[in-house]
Amino acid sequence: MTLEKTSEQVVRVVQQAKEASRRMARATTAEKNAALRAIASSLESRGHLILEANAQDVAQAKSAGLSSALIDRLTLNDSRMAEITRSVTAVIDLPDPVGEVIRTIERPNGLLIKKVRVPLGVVGVIYESRPNVTSECASLCLKSGNAVVLRGGSESFRSNQAIAAAVQEGLTAAALPPAAVSLIPVRDRLGVDAMLRLNTLIDVIIPRGGEALIKKISEESRIPVIKHAKGVCHVFVDEDANLAMAESIAVNAKCQRPGTCNAMETLLVHERVAGVFLPKAVAALRKSGVEIRGCERTQAIVPGVAPASEEDWGAEYLDLILSIKVVPSFNAAVEHIAHYGSAHSDAIVTNNTEQAERFLREVDSAAVYVNASTRFTDGFQFGLGAEVGISTERLHARGPMGLEELTTYKYVVYGSGQLRQ
Amino acid sequence: MTLEKTSEQVVRVVQQAKEASRRMARATTAEKNAALRAIASSLESRGHLILEANAQDVAQAKSAGLSSALIDRLTLNDSRMAEITRSVTAVIDLPDPVGEVIRTIERPNGLLIKKVRVPLGVVGVIYESRPNVTSECASLCLKSGNAVVLRGGSESFRSNQAIAAAVQEGLTAAALPPAAVSLIPVRDRLGVDAMLRLNTLIDVIIPRGGEALIKKISEESRIPVIKHAKGVCHVFVDEDANLAMAESIAVNAKCQRPGTCNAMETLLVHERVAGVFLPKAVAALRKSGVEIRGCERTQAIVPGVAPASEEDWGAEYLDLILSIKVVPSFNAAVEHIAHYGSAHSDAIVTNNTEQAERFLREVDSAAVYVNASTRFTDGFQFGLGAEVGISTERLHARGPMGLEELTTYKYVVYGSGQLRQ
Repeated sequence: MTLEKTSEQVVRVVQQAKEASRRMARATTAEKNAALRAIASSLESRGHLILEANAQDVAQAKSAGLSSALIDRLTLNDSRMAEITRSVTAVIDLPDPVGEVIRTIERPNGLLIKKVRVPLGVVGVIYESRPNVTSECASLCLKSGNAVVLRGGSESFRSNQAIAAAVQEGLTAAALPPAAVSLIPVRDRLGVDAMLRLNTLIDVIIPRGGEALIKKISEESRIPVIKHAKGVCHVFVDEDANLAMAESIAVNAKCQRPGTCNAMETLLVHERVAGVFLPKAVAALRKSGVEIRGCERTQAIVPGVAPASEEDWGAEYLDLILSIKVVPSFNAAVEHIAHYGSAHSDAIVTNNTEQAERFLREVDSAAVYVNASTRFTDGFQFGLGAEVGISTERLHARGPMGLEELTTYKYVVYGSGQLRQ
Repeated sequence: MTLEKTSEQVVRVVQQAKEASRRMARATTAEKNAALRAIASSLESRGHLILEANAQDVAQAKSAGLSSALIDRLTLNDSRMAEITRSVTAVIDLPDPVGEVIRTIERPNGLLIKKVRVPLGVVGVIYESRPNVTSECASLCLKSGNAVVLRGGSESFRSNQAIAAAVQEGLTAAALPPAAVSLIPVRDRLGVDAMLRLNTLIDVIIPRGGEALIKKISEESRIPVIKHAKGVCHVFVDEDANLAMAESIAVNAKCQRPGTCNAMETLLVHERVAGVFLPKAVAALRKSGVEIRGCERTQAIVPGVAPASEEDWGAEYLDLILSIKVVPSFNAAVEHIAHYGSAHSDAIVTNNTEQAERFLREVDSAAVYVNASTRFTDGFQFGLGAEVGISTERLHARGPMGLEELTTYKYVVYGSGQLRQ
C-alpha cells in the first residue's frame, strides 16, 4: 500500500477516535464501568473467535520462523483469555481519576480556582507481539476518559483485531462510541509513520517495545512521546548490609523474571564485604542459571568469572546474565549508577539508615529502594491498581503509569465579575 | 561561526550545567535562599554594568531599525532594574517544592512507598527580547533545584550576559556552582540548533516567544518541549448573562493588556441578548480603541463593523482588534470554541449555574472561567507565586507553570528484605 493511501486510512480512523474522545471525556463513572462489564462479557462470548484469529497469527509466525519466545508471547489459550477478561474486570474497581479536585485556591479578590483532573484526550499506543496489551490499554484509557488508538505488532494483527472487535461491541452495548478504542487498520510500518504525524489529533504516544522501535518513534514523532524504554538496574551491597538479605535480593532481582525492565543487570559490592559476600552469592546465582561477568576484583575473588567489558556495564541483558563490580566506596557505587544506569530502578542493601537515606536522595532513578528487590517497580506492586507500562521519562509520568498518569488537569475558575487591574 | 565549532562551545556549557544540576538537586532550602539573596545583592551592586550593557543592546537595536515595541521590551532603566531585583527576592518566600511527599503508600507486604518531588534536572529556556526573563527563569529554576541553560534573543545578548554574570556571582557567593545558571554563549541561531540536539544533557526545553520560534523548536527538538504558544481566547455572553458585567469583562479581557496570550480575541454572544448587548458593548470597546470585525448578524446590529473572515476566527491578534460572532445557542458557542480556539483561556458570562457548569466541563481549555476576565490566567494571579510562563501543552504542565511544574517525582521505597513472588 502507498504511504498516501495508508495516511488517508489512518487519518480517518484517528479522526473518529478524536471525535469519540469528546464523548468519553464527559462519560460518567457508571457509564464507563458499564462499558467495562460489557467488554468483559463480549470477550467471553467472542472467546472462540479470538482464539481462532490467534491460531492463524501463531501459524503464520511459526511458518515465518519467529523465535519460540516471541511465539510464546503471542499465543493465547483458555487460561490467558480468562486472564485478559479478569484484567478488564479489575479496572471496574479502580477509582475514576476524572473530575478529582487536585487543589483548591481562594484568591483575595474572591476568585475560586479549582485544579481539576481531566482526560489527556487521544492516547496512541504502539506495541509489539503480546495481544493482551490491546485489552489492557483499552480498559485503562476507557476508565480514564480517553480515546485510544492502538497499533500492535504485525505478527498479532488478527488477534488484536478480534480483541478490539469485542471491546467495540462492549462500548456499543454501553452506548459509548466504539471508535473510542480504535485499531490502526494497517499492518506494515507505514501505519506507524502515518500515526506519528497526526499531532493535531493524537495527544500523546506511548511506545512499548524494543529499543529500535522506541528510538524510531522518539526521533520521528511530532507528538509528545512517553517512552517505556530500557532498565539497567543495580543492586548495591553496602558494607553494612545484611549479607543473607543481600543475597536473596540479588537472586530475586536477577532471576525472578529476567526478561523485564526492572530486573537487576549489575550487582555492585562494597570492597569491605566482597570477599565474604561474593563466593556465596555467585554460587547461589549460578545455581539459578546465571552467567557472571565481573570486574578484575570479582574475578580475583570468585574463580571462573568471565571479564566484564565496558559494554557490559551499560547492557540491558534481559536474560540470565549479570555483571558484577567491586567498588571502593559508597560514592563510587552512586557514581557508577549515575554513569551507566538508565534511571529506572536501583537498590541499596544496608542496615545503615544514614547511607540508605543518602542513596535514596542521590540516586536519581524513577524508583530507588532500600532493602528490597528492584522487581517491585510495577503499577500493581505499587498499589496503583494497574499500569499501561513503566515510563522512563522525567516529564509528566515517571515510573509505573496508572490511571492518574493518563490524565491531565484544567483550572476551573469561579468569579463574580472580577476584572484584572 | 561554523555549526561544528558552535556545537563544541554549546556542549561544553551544557555539560557544565548538567554537572551543576546534580549539586543543585541536593541543595537545601537554606542554601538556595541564601543564593537568591546573594543574587539580588549582586544585581544591585552590578546595576550600572547591566544598564551599560543594555544601553549598547538598545543602541544596536535602534540602528538596526527594530520596532519601537521591541525596543521598549528590551530597554532597562532604574525602575525596571528594581523590579528585576524584587522578582528575585520574591522567590525566597515561595515554598521549596523539592522533597515534598506527594503520596505515601503502604503495601500489604510491608513496603513503604513515598512519591517524592525532585527537580527536573537541566531546564533549557529559549526566549526573545525581554532581559528580565533571564533573572526570572534563573531564580525559579534555582529554587526548584534545577540547573538552567538560557538562550535569550540575540538583540538582548549583552544585557543577558551582564544579568547572568550577576546571577553567577550570587551563586558563587552562596557556594553553589555558577554553572547552574548558564547562558548559551552564541549569538546566532546555530546556538539554538546545537542546544536542541542535546537530549542526553537537557531534560526539557521551554520556548517562550513568537509562533515561528515555537514552531521551529517543536519540529527540530530531540528534547521534550513544553510550549508556551498562542492564546485564541473567547468570552461567551450567555442568554442569562448580567449584561453590565459581561460588558466590563469583555472590555477588560480585550483591553487591559491586549498583547498577552490570555487576552480575549473573539467575543461570542447568544442571539437572544445580542440586540440589547452589542450596541452598548461595541461602543465601550470602541471607546477603548478596539477595532471590531463581526459576523453578518453583528454587522446587522451594529453599524460600521467590518466583516470577519474565516481567518479572523482563528486569529491571535495580540492587538486592539476583536472579532464578534452572534451564536444561536450555548452548544454553538461551545462548538465554535472547540473548532477555532487554542485551549488556552475561555470564559462564560451567565447567571445560570447549570449552563456555567456545562461550560466549565465541556470547554477543554487550560483555564475555563465563569463570570471573570480571561486575563487572570497567570501564575501570580492564580496564587502560584510566580511563573516561568503559561504552558499550552496537555502533558506535564498545563496553564501557568510555577515551581511545582519545574519538578518531577521519584518513588522512594523502604523495605526489609522483600522479594517479589
